[in-house]
Amino acid sequence: MTNTLFKKHQKTLEGGLTAITERGFWTVYPEIPSGKIYGATAKADGQSAYEARLNKPFTLNQPGSTGTIGSETSPYGFELGITYPKVDIDKLLPQMQAELPAWRNAGIETRTGICLEILDRLNEASFEIGLSNMHTSGQGYAMAFQAGGPHAQDRGLEALVYAYRAMTETPATTRWVKQLGKQPALSVEKTYRIAPRGIALVVACATFPTWNSYPGLFASLVTGNPVVIKPHPGAILPLAITVEIAQQVLVENGFAPHLVSLVCDEPSAPVTKTLATKEEVKLIDFTGSSAFGNWLEDHARQARVYTEKAGVNSIVIDSYDELKPVVNNLSFSLSLYSGQMCTTPQNIYIPEAIFDEVAQALAGSMTKLLSNAQGASDVLGCIQSKATLARLEAATELGEVILPSKVHHHEHFADAQLRSPLLLKVDAKDEDTYMQEQFGPIVFLIPTKNTTQSIELARRSAKAQGAITWGIYSTDDAVLEQMEDASLDAGVALSCNLTGGLFVNQAAAFSDFHATGANPAANASLTEGAFVAGRFSVVQSRRHF
Amino acid sequence: MTNTLFKKHQKTLEGGLTAITERGFWTVYPEIPSGKIYGATAKADGQSAYEARLNKPFTLNQPGSTGTIGSETSPYGFELGITYPKVDIDKLLPQMQAELPAWRNAGIETRTGICLEILDRLNEASFEIGLSNMHTSGQGYAMAFQAGGPHAQDRGLEALVYAYRAMTETPATTRWVKQLGKQPALSVEKTYRIAPRGIALVVACATFPTWNSYPGLFASLVTGNPVVIKPHPGAILPLAITVEIAQQVLVENGFAPHLVSLVCDEPSAPVTKTLATKEEVKLIDFTGSSAFGNWLEDHARQARVYTEKAGVNSIVIDSYDELKPVVNNLSFSLSLYSGQMCTTPQNIYIPEAIFDEVAQALAGSMTKLLSNAQGASDVLGCIQSKATLARLEAATELGEVILPSKVHHHEHFADAQLRSPLLLKVDAKDEDTYMQEQFGPIVFLIPTKNTTQSIELARRSAKAQGAITWGIYSTDDAVLEQMEDASLDAGVALSCNLTGGLFVNQAAAFSDFHATGANPAANASLTEGAFVAGRFSVVQSRRHF
Repeated sequence: MTNTLFKKHQKTLEGGLTAITERGFWTVYPEIPSGKIYGATAKADGQSAYEARLNKPFTLNQPGSTGTIGSETSPYGFELGITYPKVDIDKLLPQMQAELPAWRNAGIETRTGICLEILDRLNEASFEIGLSNMHTSGQGYAMAFQAGGPHAQDRGLEALVYAYRAMTETPATTRWVKQLGKQPALSVEKTYRIAPRGIALVVACATFPTWNSYPGLFASLVTGNPVVIKPHPGAILPLAITVEIAQQVLVENGFAPHLVSLVCDEPSAPVTKTLATKEEVKLIDFTGSSAFGNWLEDHARQARVYTEKAGVNSIVIDSYDELKPVVNNLSFSLSLYSGQMCTTPQNIYIPEAIFDEVAQALAGSMTKLLSNAQGASDVLGCIQSKATLARLEAATELGEVILPSKVHHHEHFADAQLRSPLLLKVDAKDEDTYMQEQFGPIVFLIPTKNTTQSIELARRSAKAQGAITWGIYSTDDAVLEQMEDASLDAGVALSCNLTGGLFVNQAAAFSDFHATGANPAANASLTEGAFVAGRFSVVQSRRHF
Repeated sequence: MTNTLFKKHQKTLEGGLTAITERGFWTVYPEIPSGKIYGATAKADGQSAYEARLNKPFTLNQPGSTGTIGSETSPYGFELGITYPKVDIDKLLPQMQAELPAWRNAGIETRTGICLEILDRLNEASFEIGLSNMHTSGQGYAMAFQAGGPHAQDRGLEALVYAYRAMTETPATTRWVKQLGKQPALSVEKTYRIAPRGIALVVACATFPTWNSYPGLFASLVTGNPVVIKPHPGAILPLAITVEIAQQVLVENGFAPHLVSLVCDEPSAPVTKTLATKEEVKLIDFTGSSAFGNWLEDHARQARVYTEKAGVNSIVIDSYDELKPVVNNLSFSLSLYSGQMCTTPQNIYIPEAIFDEVAQALAGSMTKLLSNAQGASDVLGCIQSKATLARLEAATELGEVILPSKVHHHEHFADAQLRSPLLLKVDAKDEDTYMQEQFGPIVFLIPTKNTTQSIELARRSAKAQGAITWGIYSTDDAVLEQMEDASLDAGVALSCNLTGGLFVNQAAAFSDFHATGANPAANASLTEGAFVAGRFSVVQSRRHF
């Protein structure tokens, strides 16, 4: 059964293994929500499946339930009405731990086949998961489908492929033969087995519940670690569906369903700190605030902790042939999902000499982009949390308003919270204002003496506060090189002169890395070697033959 | 110049890349201290070079010197009389940091070529380094040559090869082309560069100053990090020679010598805590006590910390065809370097039914092995520290003496401290006694009800106190399998039924891993993927083409 799954998905695995050495364009799960690809009824079926989840209990195949929990509200303005099992983690964790040896001893190929099958099933559920993502994160429909479905699956697959490669770089067995002059040779047979670390905890965020979770989930699971997912209380549904699918595939293949489990909490009674410091928990993947990420790194000392935290992304505008494509590209990047991506630029450094020209062009481009109601709601999505709304309202005090944030209305959801980005001018001296993350649609335009100062401020900001993306616009190769060297110092991925259909906040699986682990925004780069290597160890046994 | 070095050593690198995928027998640096291999005068030249170091200042090509320091005493009973630069680390570290961009920007091949050349030069100095190792660690001559010279170089090379593979698994550039229906394709050129973490600190131990340091040194250096070595105050010389050679090769190739620097201290004024918590220090490799290793993990939070600490290694004796080869193999393992290896067994679990037979045979074999004075001093070497001598003297109180530790005399060094292993019988209930590391030639023989209890005690001990090696003797495949499963749980490398010329405390580079990172004895496995992956990050830059 299980080797059948490995064979079934072997081409995907092999494609992935090639892709990670080439890092060119490669994708498995189609990103277009089209009936031609997913089947004529897929969209309607997904809609029905999603609707059938609403206003009832969501059950899972795992031990330790002691009641129900959950009160998600869609940022589009209604309550989901779903409850989830409330879990006694002191009952759940020992039972997960008890299943570790069976999962470990199943071996690399069996685990890999099962994980690849889970990914395929998740892909089939992309419309349902997309809608659950939309109504928890507040993303627009198309983005919710892509980021919550195929793009998240691609990232999960990418992490799985890296982990598979890491596990198989050491052979399963070898023969070591040492010739000692004229004496008989020393002949030793050695076996190398993969030992998982223990239970892996994935702490998810509300804005990208699946995209940010799947790399940790699949990297830990395929290396033999049982995984417990702790969703954000505002974005449980996409992960509950994920866990349900994983449990189904596990059971079909003779494994305990609770090798992948879900533990929910509510804001009034958070469980993450308790869960994260349990002795059995040996791996933690976290996406969220710097304060909580730092707390985990400091306190969950029994575990290896992979964090993605806050950051301040920067754009440096130096020079351009044409301004219009520059500001058009930027205004889309700034507006997409109302700036609630960890890759959205926050600070734009512009030399004084061209500041007014650029600022006005950007404001004009943004206004035009969002002038059509349907288009605006597709691009902006909703503001996910009340905290972000409050932050946005307070932000007008932080600088001179270049373009106010506008309330937009959604044609189907009257209570949806749609906001366009606020553009503020702040003085380069006001570092306390702009050198900290202002999560949401808040953008600082900062006039500088020259581009050298711009790059220096971006570098200092990234080293102190972290950053995941930088962009630069310059017609001068020497300036691009100067920025590239600064990006090496600060450990930030750089995009140069994007003016077409690629945006600084987009990262393609199997080609772009997400974060570097080299500045305070993250201590790991999602999916690559260092992200997977610590999730298992190699234990050898040797004897003469 | 530098690409010449890469080409010069390319075959070594390619051989290493194949070896780490096969993990069979492979070695580059000859382990036999023979004139036929190293040149007819190599031994005498090495002796002269070593003697020329004694009783004078050792100078290095690095900034920040503020005087001299150093007072090593050979465990063979005389003072080395060498002083080393005393360093102001607040002057040294910024100047090391200032050289990081040049070393980083030199690129993978240049750094790899230089590191391989350093290894070759170290190999040429093996006799000199071997003698410095002998007269600091107290190892016997042959072992001091092998472990301090070629075996250490092999481990350094192994770490370098893993790091090279990790850096080159991502291509330097790629082209990402995404077709969008009938629209023009999105065409993006991406570059991926290796960004080192910062200054790397290697904290060495007194028993294996080079063997335990070279993996961290070469893994960090080849990935672009300047390296500062902090030797144990009792074992500076082998590392001072190492740094001198590295500095020579760096200068010859146009780099600053202090990319590899040495910082010494003395027991009365230790500097490691200060050094390890400097903001510039981003990587730390440590070998030594659990107390200090844990302190580093807890306090050097700005760095990634790789530690090898104390452990309690176990042997389980279940059954055998012939007892004599079993005890002969064990008595050598226990005697080698007076049990001062982190891989030496401490606890031997024996079922009550065969306890007396095994204990007496082991005592007899040990006595016979060490009955010849020359042979005994070659095998035993010296006790490295007064603390170990004191521990050995106090240990007779810990159980029933099966074989007392004997004072041996060295034919050339009257004041050398030679001691044979003490064999003690302790009750299985006395876990407080034997489930902690008693570093040195102290061996506990523990009668158990049966092998299942033996395995359970070994497992519990390893999980609580750490372990690097286990051995088992059994004629029953089911028992071997039971022990193998326990070794996966506890994360300990297992040797089964060693009765010939291979010993449980020996680990061959490119085949055996050293430690697993899966129990308290170490948080990393020397040289493999997880050991190198965190030492750099990949930073990308992309633009349309």
